[in-house]
Formats: sequence, structure tokens, C-alpha cells
Amino acid sequence: MKEQNIVPEQLAERLNEILKADDIILYRETLKNYYPADLAEALSCLPLERIIIALRIMPTEDLAEIFPHFNNEIQEEIIESYTSVEIKELFDQIFTDDIVEILEELPSNIVEKILRATTPESRLLINSILKYNVNTAGSIMSVDYTSLKINWTVKEAINIIKKERDEAEEVHYFFVVDDLNNLKGVVELKTLFFSKNEALIEDIMDDRYIYANTKTDQEEVANMFKKYDITTLPIINSQNKLVGIITVDDILDVLEEEATEDIHIMAGINPTEDEYFKTSVFKMVKSRIIWLLLLMVSATITQVIILVFMNLYGVTKETASFDIGNNNFSISYVMAILLTPLLTVISGTTGNASNQSSTMIVRALSLKEVEPKDYWRILWKELRVSTTLGLILVAINFVRMIAIYAVEFKGNINQRELWYAIATLSISMFLAIVFSKVIGATFPLLAQKMKIDPAITAGPLLTTIIDAISTAIFFGIGMIFFFVVL
Amino acid sequence: MKEQNIVPEQLAERLNEILKADDIILYRETLKNYYPADLAEALSCLPLERIIIALRIMPTEDLAEIFPHFNNEIQEEIIESYTSVEIKELFDQIFTDDIVEILEELPSNIVEKILRATTPESRLLINSILKYNVNTAGSIMSVDYTSLKINWTVKEAINIIKKERDEAEEVHYFFVVDDLNNLKGVVELKTLFFSKNEALIEDIMDDRYIYANTKTDQEEVANMFKKYDITTLPIINSQNKLVGIITVDDILDVLEEEATEDIHIMAGINPTEDEYFKTSVFKMVKSRIIWLLLLMVSATITQVIILVFMNLYGVTKETASFDIGNNNFSISYVMAILLTPLLTVISGTTGNASNQSSTMIVRALSLKEVEPKDYWRILWKELRVSTTLGLILVAINFVRMIAIYAVEFKGNINQRELWYAIATLSISMFLAIVFSKVIGATFPLLAQKMKIDPAITAGPLLTTIIDAISTAIFFGIGMIFFFVVL
Repeated sequence: MKEQNIVPEQLAERLNEILKADDIILYRETLKNYYPADLAEALSCLPLERIIIALRIMPTEDLAEIFPHFNNEIQEEIIESYTSVEIKELFDQIFTDDIVEILEELPSNIVEKILRATTPESRLLINSILKYNVNTAGSIMSVDYTSLKINWTVKEAINIIKKERDEAEEVHYFFVVDDLNNLKGVVELKTLFFSKNEALIEDIMDDRYIYANTKTDQEEVANMFKKYDITTLPIINSQNKLVGIITVDDILDVLEEEATEDIHIMAGINPTEDEYFKTSVFKMVKSRIIWLLLLMVSATITQVIILVFMNLYGVTKETASFDIGNNNFSISYVMAILLTPLLTVISGTTGNASNQSSTMIVRALSLKEVEPKDYWRILWKELRVSTTLGLILVAINFVRMIAIYAVEFKGNINQRELWYAIATLSISMFLAIVFSKVIGATFPLLAQKMKIDPAITAGPLLTTIIDAISTAIFFGIGMIFFFVVL
Repeated sequence: MKEQNIVPEQLAERLNEILKADDIILYRETLKNYYPADLAEALSCLPLERIIIALRIMPTEDLAEIFPHFNNEIQEEIIESYTSVEIKELFDQIFTDDIVEILEELPSNIVEKILRATTPESRLLINSILKYNVNTAGSIMSVDYTSLKINWTVKEAINIIKKERDEAEEVHYFFVVDDLNNLKGVVELKTLFFSKNEALIEDIMDDRYIYANTKTDQEEVANMFKKYDITTLPIINSQNKLVGIITVDDILDVLEEEATEDIHIMAGINPTEDEYFKTSVFKMVKSRIIWLLLLMVSATITQVIILVFMNLYGVTKETASFDIGNNNFSISYVMAILLTPLLTVISGTTGNASNQSSTMIVRALSLKEVEPKDYWRILWKELRVSTTLGLILVAINFVRMIAIYAVEFKGNINQRELWYAIATLSISMFLAIVFSKVIGATFPLLAQKMKIDPAITAGPLLTTIIDAISTAIFFGIGMIFFFVVL
């Protein structure tokens, strides 16, 4: 019985010691006691050169099982250190759909190296899958399956199944085709099992089956699995020929991907396919900036509404203050007329910013992509992302402020008032954004550590806290500027 | 080949016509052309008494396949109209884990009626599963499986499998136990298939297997399926005896449930297990009110921060206005000092309220629980939920306002000012909440109809729009009150 629930760091330590002692026999024996997913997780804890050594002295069939579980960076390094003969040996033993999944995530030079090393037939197969659009049935289907001919006998079918059983990914449902590869029915292994050798496939097959097209959206495919309680789905092309199968284990990934996409979009993050740590700072900024910008700019609407009502209510420089001093504007006027309409911009933007971070972390936590012990790495990443975002937003906000004051006040505004408002909003927005992102990432991790559901700390509770803090930062900076700078 | 991608209303129409013509043979033939899930969906479109008739003239084995696909209300009505003999016949043909799932959702009097009708053995089995905590492996496991004894031969095993194959839910992986029912290994059907009749199970089984405990959390179970790429997981009890299995199709539901739970919590909705339309107005109010209240009250923090800064900035009744009239307070003073600090309460509360509705609808859309054509039903539901929520929030806000003015202003405030502020905030909050919920539910449905991703319309974009609108409502009501009422 293999061990489960292992601690990756401990297993990594143990494997490393065996490797250092050069005890290859013990090493290979030890490998047998663990599952590929656990081995990959453990080995990933070691420095890269140790991983390469660990993989080199592993039988290729073990490596082929472990390889798809590594993250892209490690996969890339392994491929780079391998000769094309070694790559061929390795990839010959990995299922085509796993290869495609690996290739989709690797940089093009590595993909070329792998494709050059594989046989022409498998290259053709891989390329035919790679050309399907992301998120379609074609792009997630498996081509390693055994199909049966409608005019075979059970005995013939069983012989083929036996012959191909190591290459086939699914061995419990077999799809039946005619001579032109048109899908005709399905046979379960158990039916073959309990049928006479001479029986014809045509007579024992079930001609009622659910199928999908290569172009069917993966979300729809997932819904078919749920609705019809199936475990394997045949995929046909536009000419109704059987070209692949999808198994239910691939659907687990689809469901998670789709849920993550929804969650991210609802938090104003453009979906990225990669896991938290696999996404670069640049990519993260890119996926977050669009919505933040759009929403900051559209907060202008609320700002204008407040300004319009100020007019309607007769709140003007004269009514708001009677102690206009040398500066031609008093502090009470600054608070009531200059700063208040801007409050909505800052609280909107920081609310969205913190929500993005907390949502990403909550989802990554529940998919086990990150753990509380990754805190400092996450903090460092969020700091870089948030300072970049902060600088971009401040720059765009500068233009926005100039524009709104030009339009709303028709240039009829004190220059010093304008610069004062811009300076206050810019500095406090930058600080509040960095702060919101840090708090947004910290809360869920802290909750997880304290065994509270991290999802509770994301969303409205966080927004309320961020709201209070950014209001204080904003008016605080405004006051400092008034007394110190002006 | 059965038809797929059918339109439920059309099929319902057709079945109804056949039923009206009393053509039972054609009816039963027609049933064979469709999948149980589709039939349940179609029949659900008919009036209840037609459904009952349609089910009565259906062979029990067909009904047993269709029954689990109905929603709870229809299941309840069917059970109520059935005698205990009919119930026994029906439930004898449904897998135990499906029965448990059905029972968990039905009211206790119906559950009792079903349990009384079943055999003592299955009652024992059902009760033993019902006692496991929700969300544990025990509560979702299946007990309809065939286990093999370690000392059997392949031939003996095959005979048992043949005998039990109609009652077993999983027929591709068989778990092997010793005489004391301790889990010892796993055998795949294909291994039995390719082994000699005389071979011992002990020699052909795989003693490496992943397992879980009845108390293991279902989320952890789902992670095991993903990590180890398995399709069946044996479940052991605290004495290490095999007590059930979980198959991967059950995990699809678990993944969706867990994602829905996270999404709802992040939007400040306490998770409910039921689908959108299956959740009563009362239950919906209950699941949404707690967070709305908590967040409205905690928006007090931001309100106090603004009031404190007003003091610091010297914004007072005197500085804010020089045209204090008979009412002892001018309209500019009202806007700048009375209403502005309250703006944060209204925009926070309505933002959360709209977010709850849009999140619920987006998730329900992606799980296909609702469709754009359900718009009027959804609107009616959201109207009832939002008016209830609005009334509760206004009542609590009344107390909150009295309290904050008592504490912050130490009673040193004009009575008329206080009542004016309370009246403005109460009326505008009620209107804004109803409005936010309606818009929050409308946007995603409209997006779906226009083939835009509904998730985009939820979240920050919606919050920004609601923010603008509720600000306008708030200051607008404030103005009307000032001129008309005072």
C-alpha cells in the first residue's frame, strides 16, 4: 500500500539523503511507495539541479508519470537539460492529452524542441489537438482510446483491447464505429465481459449515447457529464467521425477553471489561466489594471453627481466658509467642497483593488495553489503589483482630474485649489491602493491560519474596513497638505 | 440513438398530447427515446396533476431513473400521492446514495413516509448514512458496491459480480477485503478480465490504493480525486473497515457546491444548499440580512471618521453657512454637514445589496438553475426579498442613527435636524435597496440574453453604477424633503 497524506518537505529530505548516499536501488524502491503527484510535489521542494539528478536516475516510465505533475518552470528546465532522444523516450510514454496540456503552457522554443523529438505521427496528432480553440471539447479531448468496429466479434474486440490496453486512457467504455469511422454506439467492458465470444459488437452495443462536437464549449461538456451522469463522452468532428473521447477526470479541471474564471471576473480581474505563483507581476498588473481604470474613471459619474447636488443645495465657496484668509480658501471649504466629492473615487478604487487581491488569494487557497506559509512571497508579489498599479492609476487620475475640472468648472477654478486636490488625491490614492492590496491578501491567509473560512474575510467585510481606512488616509493627507505644504 | 439537446417545453407538449390520446404504447415507446434527466425536465413543465398521471403509466424502472432528477416540490407531491406499496416498489430501484440525497431535501413527514415503506435492511442503511455530518465523505458515499474477498478465486469473484451487477453502482473497480472487512486492495475489472479463472484475488489485486475516512471533508475528498486522477475512492470507518465508495461523478457535484459556497460567502450571502427557485423568500432574506446588517452598522466607522475630520477641518454649522434662516438650518449646511457623512452608509449598503443579487444570479446562470426567460419570476422574487430586507434595514438604521447622534453629539443636536436626517436616509435607503436588488438581478440576465458573459456585469461595474444612482436618490430625496416637508 502506498503512503498518502505525506509532508512534501519531509519526503524531499528523505529522497535527497538517499540520492546523496548514491543508493540507486533504495531510491527506486522508495519511489514505488509514493504516488506520482506526491513525488512531484516533494521533488519540487529541492533545488533545480537536485531535481534533474533525481529524475535522471529514475526509470523512464516513472518519470513519465511524474512529469505532468511538475509546474511549468520545472518542466521547462527538465526539457532544456534533455537530449532529443531522451525527450522522445519520455514523451512516448505520456498520454497525448497530457502532452497537449503541457505544451500549451510552455514557451514556443521548448515546444519546438519537444515536437522535433517526437515521432511524425504523434506530432501530427498533437498539432491537430493544439489547433482547437481553448475551452472547446477538441482542446481537452483525449486521442488515446480504443475504438471497436461494428462488424467485429466480441473475441476480436477483446484481442484488440488487450493489445492496446497500455496505450488507451479509458478502458471501461468503448465506442463503436463503422468502416468510415462514423460513431454508431457504445459498449461497456462489463458487457464484453459477460457476452459470448462469437457475439457481434453490433448486437451487444448500446446505440443510445451522448456525444459532443469538437467545437462544443467545455462548460457545456461539463454540464452534459453532470446532467447525464456519464463518465466518458465521445467527440465527433464536423463530418460526424469519432475523433476523441473526454473522460470525467478532465471535467473536474474544467469545472474548477470555469468557477475560477467566474469568480475572478466578478472581482474585476481578467481571467488568467495560470496559478497564482505562476503568473508574473506584469501579467497580474495587466489582468487587474483594466477594470481598476475603468471603474476609477466611471466613479467620475458619482463625483459629478455630488458636484451637481452641491450646486443645487447652494454649497459654494461663499456659503461654506466665512473665514476666507490669505490663501483665498479656508480649510473648512477644502473639506466640504474640494475633497468630499473625491472621496467616492478613492473609496471605489481601493475597494476594488482590495477585492481583487482577496478574491485571488481565497480562490488560490481553496485550490491549494497557495498556503499561509507562502505569506511573505505573496506579500512581496502584491507589493510589486500594487505599486505598479498605483503609479498607473495616479497618472491616469491626473489626466482625469485636469479634464473634469476643465469641463465641470470651465477653467473657472483657482489653480492652487486644483493642484492641492490633485496632490492630495494622488498621494492618498497611491498609499491606499498599496495598503488595500496588502490587507486584501493578508486577511484570507490570516483567516486560513486561524481556521476561519477565508471567503468570509474577502468581500463586503473587507470593503467596509478598506473604506474606513482609505477615508482616514484621504482626509489625513488632505490635512497635512493644508497645514504643511500650503 | 436517444435524442439530445431537446427543448423541454416541446417534449412536454408532445408527451402531454400522447397522454391525452391515451396511447400508452406510443407513450412508453416515446420515453425510450429520451434520457431520464431530459424527461424530468420536460415533465416538470406540465401542471402537477398531469405529471402524476404521466408517472403513473410509466414502468417503475423508468420512474426510478427519472425520479431523482425532479426538484423537491415535485418529489414531495409524488410521494404524497403514492401508497406505501408504490413507494416501496419505486425506492427499491433507486440507488441508496440517491435516496439519501432525496431524503436530505424533503420535509420530515415525507421522509418518514418513505422510510416506513422501505425494507428494514435498507432503512438501516439509509439511516446509517443520514447520520454522517453534511459535507463529509460518509454523507456522500455510496453503499451499493460489490466488494471481493481476498481469498476468492477470479472465478468466484466473477460469479458474485455477475450476480450483483444490477445493484452495484460501480462495476469497474472492486475493493478487496479480508474476512473482517478490512480493506486490503483493489482490482480493476480489466484485470479480472485478463486473469486466469483459478488465480487468487490476493495475487492479482493492487495493494496500493488511495482511501479516505467517513469523516474526511468532502472538499478534501475532491482534492484527492484531482490530485491522484482516480475515479473511485474506498471509504473506511474508524475501525478501518470498508463501509462505502465514492465515485467521481459525485465529486462533480461537490466541486460545484464548494465553489458556489465560496462565491456566495465572498458576496456576503450565507450559503444555502438549495437552487435559486427552490429557496424561499424567507430563507433568502435570512441568508442575506446578516451581512447587510453587519456591514451597514460597520459603515458607522467610516461615518464617524468623516464626522471626526469635519471637526478637525473646522466644518461647523457656523462655517458652513451664513444664511441661517427661520428653520435654524440652511440647505447648504444640510448637504455639507448633515447628509454627506451618511452617504457612505447608503452607498456601502446598496453596493452590498446589489452584489448579493447579481452574484446569486450569475452563479445560478452558470449552473443552469435559471435562464433569461425566468426574468419575471426572478424579478418578483427579488422584489419580495428586497422590500423585506429594506424594511428590516431601515428599522435597524433608525436605532443606529439615534444611538450615533446621542453618542457623537451628546444629545447636543437640533431635534428637527435629526428627524430630517433619519427620514431622508430611511426613505432613500429603502428605495435604493429595492432598486439595487432589481438592477443587480437584471444586469446578468440581460447580459446572458445579449450573449455577454454575465459575470462581467456583476461585481465592480455594477457597484459603480449603483453607487452613482444611490447617491442621486439620496441627495434627491434630501432636497425634496427640505423644500416640501420642512
